[in-house]
Formats: sequence, C-alpha cells, structure tokens
Amino acid sequence: MKNLLNKYLDFERKIETYTLALKTMLYDSSTIAPKNGNDYRNEKMAELSGEIFSIKTDETRYKILNDLKDSDLSIALKKQIFYQLEDLDKLRSIPKDRYIAYNLLINKAEKIWEDAKEHSDYRMFEPTLALVVEMTKEIYTYRDSETSLYERMLDDYEPESTEMFYDKFFSEMKNTIIPIILDLPTKVFSFAYKDFSTEKQKDFCSFIVNFLNFNSDSLYIGESSHPFSSSFSIDDSRITNRYNAFDFSSSIFSLIHELGHATYNSQVDREYQGMYIADNMSYGMHESQSRLYENQLGRQPAFWHNNYPKLQNLFSDQLKDIKVNDFIEFINYATPSPIRVEADELTYCIHIIIRYELEKGLFNGTYTTKDLDKVWNEKYHDYLGLTINNDSDGILQDIHWSNGSFGYFPTYALGSAYAAQFYSAMEKDLQIEKLLLNNRFDVINNWLKEKIHHDGGIYRSKEILLRATEEEFNPQYYINYLTKKFKGN
Amino acid sequence: MKNLLNKYLDFERKIETYTLALKTMLYDSSTIAPKNGNDYRNEKMAELSGEIFSIKTDETRYKILNDLKDSDLSIALKKQIFYQLEDLDKLRSIPKDRYIAYNLLINKAEKIWEDAKEHSDYRMFEPTLALVVEMTKEIYTYRDSETSLYERMLDDYEPESTEMFYDKFFSEMKNTIIPIILDLPTKVFSFAYKDFSTEKQKDFCSFIVNFLNFNSDSLYIGESSHPFSSSFSIDDSRITNRYNAFDFSSSIFSLIHELGHATYNSQVDREYQGMYIADNMSYGMHESQSRLYENQLGRQPAFWHNNYPKLQNLFSDQLKDIKVNDFIEFINYATPSPIRVEADELTYCIHIIIRYELEKGLFNGTYTTKDLDKVWNEKYHDYLGLTINNDSDGILQDIHWSNGSFGYFPTYALGSAYAAQFYSAMEKDLQIEKLLLNNRFDVINNWLKEKIHHDGGIYRSKEILLRATEEEFNPQYYINYLTKKFKGN
Repeated sequence: MKNLLNKYLDFERKIETYTLALKTMLYDSSTIAPKNGNDYRNEKMAELSGEIFSIKTDETRYKILNDLKDSDLSIALKKQIFYQLEDLDKLRSIPKDRYIAYNLLINKAEKIWEDAKEHSDYRMFEPTLALVVEMTKEIYTYRDSETSLYERMLDDYEPESTEMFYDKFFSEMKNTIIPIILDLPTKVFSFAYKDFSTEKQKDFCSFIVNFLNFNSDSLYIGESSHPFSSSFSIDDSRITNRYNAFDFSSSIFSLIHELGHATYNSQVDREYQGMYIADNMSYGMHESQSRLYENQLGRQPAFWHNNYPKLQNLFSDQLKDIKVNDFIEFINYATPSPIRVEADELTYCIHIIIRYELEKGLFNGTYTTKDLDKVWNEKYHDYLGLTINNDSDGILQDIHWSNGSFGYFPTYALGSAYAAQFYSAMEKDLQIEKLLLNNRFDVINNWLKEKIHHDGGIYRSKEILLRATEEEFNPQYYINYLTKKFKGN
Repeated sequence: MKNLLNKYLDFERKIETYTLALKTMLYDSSTIAPKNGNDYRNEKMAELSGEIFSIKTDETRYKILNDLKDSDLSIALKKQIFYQLEDLDKLRSIPKDRYIAYNLLINKAEKIWEDAKEHSDYRMFEPTLALVVEMTKEIYTYRDSETSLYERMLDDYEPESTEMFYDKFFSEMKNTIIPIILDLPTKVFSFAYKDFSTEKQKDFCSFIVNFLNFNSDSLYIGESSHPFSSSFSIDDSRITNRYNAFDFSSSIFSLIHELGHATYNSQVDREYQGMYIADNMSYGMHESQSRLYENQLGRQPAFWHNNYPKLQNLFSDQLKDIKVNDFIEFINYATPSPIRVEADELTYCIHIIIRYELEKGLFNGTYTTKDLDKVWNEKYHDYLGLTINNDSDGILQDIHWSNGSFGYFPTYALGSAYAAQFYSAMEKDLQIEKLLLNNRFDVINNWLKEKIHHDGGIYRSKEILLRATEEEFNPQYYINYLTKKFKGN
C-alpha cells in the first residue's frame, strides 16, 4: 500500500509540476508575451497539454487510482482519488491526437478572436468559431454518457448541474428580473467618465489589496484584455486587471472580483499545497467568492466609508464635489448595457441567460454560428432593450467561446446565487457593516476560510452550501436580494 | 533510418517544450513572481529540470543518438547530434538525485543571495556559497576527465578553452591594461547623476529598440535586479532591464547590451526554429555580440548623432546645456569603480580577471569561501586601487556564484576580445560610421547575420572567428582597441 501510494504521489507531483509550468506559460501568454512568438509558443503549450494528458491517462496511473480508491486513506486523498477517477473516465474517452489538435485549435482561436474583436468583425472569427464548436462536439461525443452534449459541458464546470436545473433557475430569474429591468429609471453620472489617470487607478488598487487584507507578497497583478485569476500555489496568486482612463470604476471592481477568487485559493489548508484538491473547486463555487467580494461586500456603503476618502484624495480634481453617497449611488446604479463584465449586478444575470440560451441552441441544433451574431443582437434587444451597434460590444466581447469554454457562463449566474445565500448566512454570524467600517476585513476572510475556503475542493457545491449555510441551494436568496435592492428604485 | 530519425525528433520536441516551459518559469521568477511563492515554485522548477534531465539522459535517446551520429544527415543535424552526445557524456556522469538536489540548492541559493545582497552582508550568504561550491565540486567530480575541476567548468561555457589559454590571455591583459588604468585622469560628470525619470528612461529605451532595428513585436522588456536575456524562440526575445533615476545611462547601455544577445538569437535561420542548435552558442560567442553592440557600436559618436537629440529632448531640464560631445566623453569615460555591470570597457576586464582568479583559487584549494570577501577586496585594491566599503558593492554584486555558474565570468572578457576582432573585420566591409549616421542599423545587423548569426550554434567559436574574420582568435585586437582608446587619455 505504502509503495502504491508513493507511486501515486510521484504521478501527482509530475502532473502538478507540468500544470504549474503550463499555467505560467498561459499567464505569460495573456499578459506580456510578444505577439510574433504566438505560433511557436502555442504549439509548445499544446504539446505540454498533450504531455499532461498522457500522464493523466497513463494506464499505470489509472490502475493505481483504482487500486487505491477503496484503501484506508485520509478523507482528502479519498475524495481526490474519487474525483480524479471521475475526470479520468472523461479524459480517457478522448483519443490523444484529437486532444492535442483541440488544444492547438483553441490556442489559435483565442488569438483570432482577439484580432476579430480589435476589428469588431464577427465575420473574421465566425469560421474559427464554427471549427471550435464542431470540434467541441466531437470531443464530448467520445464521452460515454446518457445526457445531451451540452449537459456534459455543464457538468464539467459545475458537477451534477443539468439543463433542467438551469432552465428552471433561469426561467424564475427572467420572470422576476426582466420586469424590474424594464422599469428602471435612468440617471447620468457624468463625473465617473472623466479622465482618471491609469497610474493612479493602480495606486488605488494597492489600497484595496490592503483593505481586503490580501498579502501583497503573495500576489502579482498583471494586465490583460480580459481580467482573470490563476492560482500558482497557496502563496502565489496571479490576477490581471485592465485600466481604462475614462471608466475608472471598472478596474476597481475587477480587482475586488479577482481578489475574491485569489482569496479562495490562498485560504486553502496548507496541508493541501500541491494537491489536486487545492484547486479543483467548481466554477460556480469559485465564482460565488468573487461575486460576494465584488457585489454584496464591495458595493455596500460601509465598504466605502474609509476607502472613498482615499479615492477622492487621489482624484481630487475629478471627485472634489462628489459626496460619498453620490459615489455609492453610482456604483449601485443598474441600467441595461451591452458589456457583460461591465454590467451591474441586476442586469448581469440576463447577460448570462442570453449566453446560456445561445450555447444550448448551438449544441442542440437550434442555432449555427453563421447567424449567431443576429441571434445575439435580437436577444439583447428583447431582454434588455438594447441595440448592439458593433460586434466587439456584442458577440465578440468574451474570450470564452474562442477557447471552447462552453457551459462555463451559466456558472457565473449560479455563483452569484450561491453568493447571496452565503452572504445571508454570514450576516447571521458577523456584524458585517461594523467590520467594514473598522477595517476588519480579516474577520470576514476568516469566516470564509472556516466555512468554505479551507477545505479547497474536497466537497461538491451541494455539500459546501449545506455546511456553510445549513440549507440546500435556494435561488430565492439571490432573487430576493436583487428585488429588494432594485425594485421600484 | 526514417523511423529512427522520427523517434529522435520526438525526443527533441519534448525537450524543447519542457525547456521553453522552464525558461518561462525562470523569467517569471526573476521578474514578476511574488516572493512568498518562491519555495513552492523553486521546488517545481527543480522537478522540471529533473524531468528534462531524465529525458536527455534516457537510455533510448542515447542509443538513438549513437545510431544516428554517422548517418547521412544535414550538416545542422550532424553537428547537433555531435554536440548532444558530448553534452550527454557530461550529464550521464551525474546521478539524477544529485542533479535534482543541486538544482534545488541553487534555486534556493539565488534567493538567499538576493536577501544577503539587500542587507549587504556576505556572512548571510557565505554558508550557502560554501554549500554551492562543495556541491559544484561533487557534480564535476562525476565527470570522467583528465582536466582540473575548474577547467571542466570553463569548458562548459566556452568549449575547448583551458586554464592555460585564459592564464596567458589574462596575463597579457593585466600587463597592458593595469598601467593604463593607474594612469587615468579623473573627471566628474555631475549632469549624469541628476534625477532622470525612470518612465522617460523607458521611453528612450523604445527609441533605441527602434534604432537598433529590433522588431518590437518580437520583444518583451521586463524588470529584474540584474539585466539578462532569454530567447524563447526566434520570434520571442525576453530581456530585462533595471532603471535607476540617478544613473540614467545604466539602463541605456544594459538595453543595448541585452539587445545584442537578442539579435543573435533572432537572426538564426528560421529552419532551425525549435532545434537545439538554434540556441547553443558558446557563452563567449554570445557575449561578443552584446559587447560589440554595447561598446564598439553603442559608444561611438556616430551612434549618438541622431539619438542624442532625442535623449536631450526627453530630458530637457537635465541635458539642456550638455553638448553631444560632453555626452560622448561621459559614456566613454574610464575610471575604476566597484560594480562590474556598471564598469567602463577598460576596467571591465579587470573585474573579470579578479573573478577568474578567485574561482580558480576556490576550486584548486588556494581560497575558501570563508575569507573570500577579504580576497575580493584585496584584489580590488591591488588591481583597481579601490576600497570596497560594503559587500553589496563587492563580493555580493553578481548573481553567478549563487546559481553555480563558475567558469562563466571569463567568457565575458573573451567575448569582449572576440567583439574587437569582429568589429575590425566589419570595418573592412562596411562604412559603419555612415550607416549609423543614416539610421541604417539594418545593414550592420545583416552583416552580423550573414557572418555569424544565421548559423546559430552549428559551429564552435574557433570556426566562427575564422569564417567571419578570416583569422584565428587574436586578443591583440582587443588590447589594441583599448590601448588606442584609453592610453594617455
């Protein structure tokens, strides 16, 4: 047994090493890498993915996992092996050469998407998207499963979620939220779109890192066209941000959001360092932590009590006549807008629902990539009353489809719903407002650590919710939160 | 044969993939990585090095290389296989666990050196340096060779170089150069040490990239405590720089230097992309290209004819009264100073000779790490007339010994000597001054490409010198260049 376990741990060490190498290359590639090196680098990243794939699907490892799965091991190891066998059954269904080809395709597609977005031309990207969809279908067809292709994708991002589950959740959301959106008053916050130096935005971001009690010696903030977060280890969080001089609040809330992700990974028990379960949380669960940071916490008045004066001080020209209450009103203002990542928390879920409906349609045959931009624009018109004028503000805005991440979007809304439920539980234990007023974000982080973070990905979302909130998933928290906040505003 | 060749190329592809991953991790680690992640990251980098080592030393690969070595292949492949077998005979001598342990040690040592340098305390580093020396001895003892331990190290950085060769070269240098140094007049250039905004220094560096005709879409310039260059591929050059507001010329000449390295790699024939011989030039040969850029080209008046007005324009406050000739005098001023990387080209070789004498002494038993700082300071006093006041300006200034790079330093002086010989040959073919005045650095780069760069690492230094200059190595070019420039100044 000892020997078997050591062999298993040797495999894991190798996988973790190559995975960290690949994460480093991906982060490099998305932030600083010179573009002329893309082709060669993409080829090498695809090869490295292929190597990881080979090691994961190695017959010896598969046998070892099966031999170990009923052994007397720690809960963490037992769970880890269970999840890894589950993953492996998915992976083993894919022929290696097809897996490498798929990775090569999506690496290239990402760069083509970037170019197309820059030119705001869906036609430049459509043939590539068609290939990605086709090949994604192929990859999921290999998997032995009774469920629809799209449901297999959903399951990869949020285990045990189904089309029926999302259909029900999203239909409730649409019924409640769309009428509220159509009834929203409009207001103009002209102060917010003046020229705010990006260098000073970065300075303010450093204050926020500090306020959120994140150890800056464990963090690097790069720049990329789309903010993201990547955990290199418990003590090494990489996030990215983007800075727009004429939309200063964007970098602030992106930062808070990404630090929500980073805090999750950084508060996992140290004994899981380098283990698979240190970083295999579901996408929905991970998103719940970033949304909780960004919305429930980051947008409430108490959060800004000590931080707004600092902001005002940095941007004295732009904000000298703007009271904290005006600022609070601005950051909680909801109105339909075309860009998902810039959307307020009310209209946000509709952006997700539109993508869900499109993805589902692409894989069950209702839609094709050919006219997908039209369908996109129609739904934006019907659900949000918006006219989309160019593709970069429409169908080309998100990176996800270019890298084959279908089934990912719905977890953003699900994460928002989890967040509302967690916040409600947190409120029972902590005087959140007082903690924010007194710069005690550490207490909030400790609650999250104890209730959610320290276990890493040992438990599935259902169990985490039950442990942390003593209740099953209940979307009503999210609906009530939004309704209370935005109805009849 | 076809089959054998394909198997060989599969090995090569894997090695190149892992090597690029490791380079990316090293670049990341030296530039942006948060320090709390060091331990885990170092462990993983050591594991990745270990994997590369395993693949390189795989018995099957060794057999394939031997089976292929006399086959009918292209010159490039034949040479590549010859060098790889040579490397392999060195590597195969080292037990894998010792190799991993060594990599782990030097990764840690680099961070300890960094800390010690920050605290300017050699005592903090000395025990670690002692370990590194001990383990370096062990690693080289495994190698089956008739030569001294230190000579084995010298051979790794400059194949076929010997202690006798360097002893002779350096004794000639000392005899000629030390008297010139002791006779140097002193002059103060107070304008050069005012406050020069580091942001504007970066802007000026962009001009220089352009002037040197380097494609900026194939380049990224990061920041690190010690400037270096790493070639990710022919189209992806990574260099670093450091910016000191009170020593503006440092970032300029570091940039020119590192771009000399980057240009070498970027002008290798495209058919060698991803091959070992695209990036296995000797250290001395690589350094010759950076020195040629930095000194013979970068410091001559014609280089500054069009560039100085731009510099003056950027720093109008600091340079408004400084004529181009004053600036030229400043950048060609020679005087003893404690820091190697900031040294002028005259005293530079003495910095190297001191390190050579210390390294040689460490490995033949004359010196130990215990008092090495004293020996360092004595030699700086004797050869350069300097009193070293603190370790960070003394024995702790360079990263090399912390990562076990003994035998590396001498190649810096050798590269400078190669550079002088190349420049003399270039002068016969090109009107260099005119080209610089007319912004035609492309013609200079083309000469370098045709004579030196395009072959990558196919040929050894001796052969490259013979092909490019039609003469064997002759240190007299270097000695004459320095004597003519600095004697009786």
